[in-house]
Amino acid sequence: MASTQHGGRERVPPHPDIDTIGLQQVLEALVDPVRRLIVGELYAASEALSCGTIELPVSKSTATHHFHVLREAGLIRQYYVGTSRMNALRREEFDESFPGLLPALIAAADRA
Amino acid sequence: MASTQHGGRERVPPHPDIDTIGLQQVLEALVDPVRRLIVGELYAASEALSCGTIELPVSKSTATHHFHVLREAGLIRQYYVGTSRMNALRREEFDESFPGLLPALIAAADRA
Repeated sequence: MASTQHGGRERVPPHPDIDTIGLQQVLEALVDPVRRLIVGELYAASEALSCGTIELPVSKSTATHHFHVLREAGLIRQYYVGTSRMNALRREEFDESFPGLLPALIAAADRA
Repeated sequence: MASTQHGGRERVPPHPDIDTIGLQQVLEALVDPVRRLIVGELYAASEALSCGTIELPVSKSTATHHFHVLREAGLIRQYYVGTSRMNALRREEFDESFPGLLPALIAAADRA
């Protein structure tokens, strides 16, 4: 059955090629503290997390918007497992395009 | 003469202690491409540059605003030499507070 070809990864929204992402877009995504919070959680988890797992101080629809912006900026990959929308940091790809940027931002966020 | 105590460094505008600067303020400063251009020029020059030395695609008053934002975010130190307002990156201080952040941003800006 062609429709189940990707197993639980149906309804995958579009993801940009990391090479098409510029620093401007990345910084516009990361200037928002809620989006940095999401990236920080995914960085710490080192695995994909469902949207509901990450506690955010915003409404569900606002959170969905933030995840969308991060996906558009090449920072996260989203896919479904059943009804759960999963989010994974595109860490290796991102580190290759923007060496040292994520670790520096995470370190800055972690300091007291 | 007390008034010449600082030689050419009179009329120094206030500079924040780097420890009072948060990542949010830094990113808000650096999300602007003209301000990143200024920081990039100062980083490359490795010395203080007068405002007029740095070619910017904005009016003089807008440029003055951008320098002001960078100073408020702890990124640059400004002082006068005669009538020239000089700008120096607070690189060592900044690197201590935000390790790796400036080099990562400069590297990202430099790539094709």
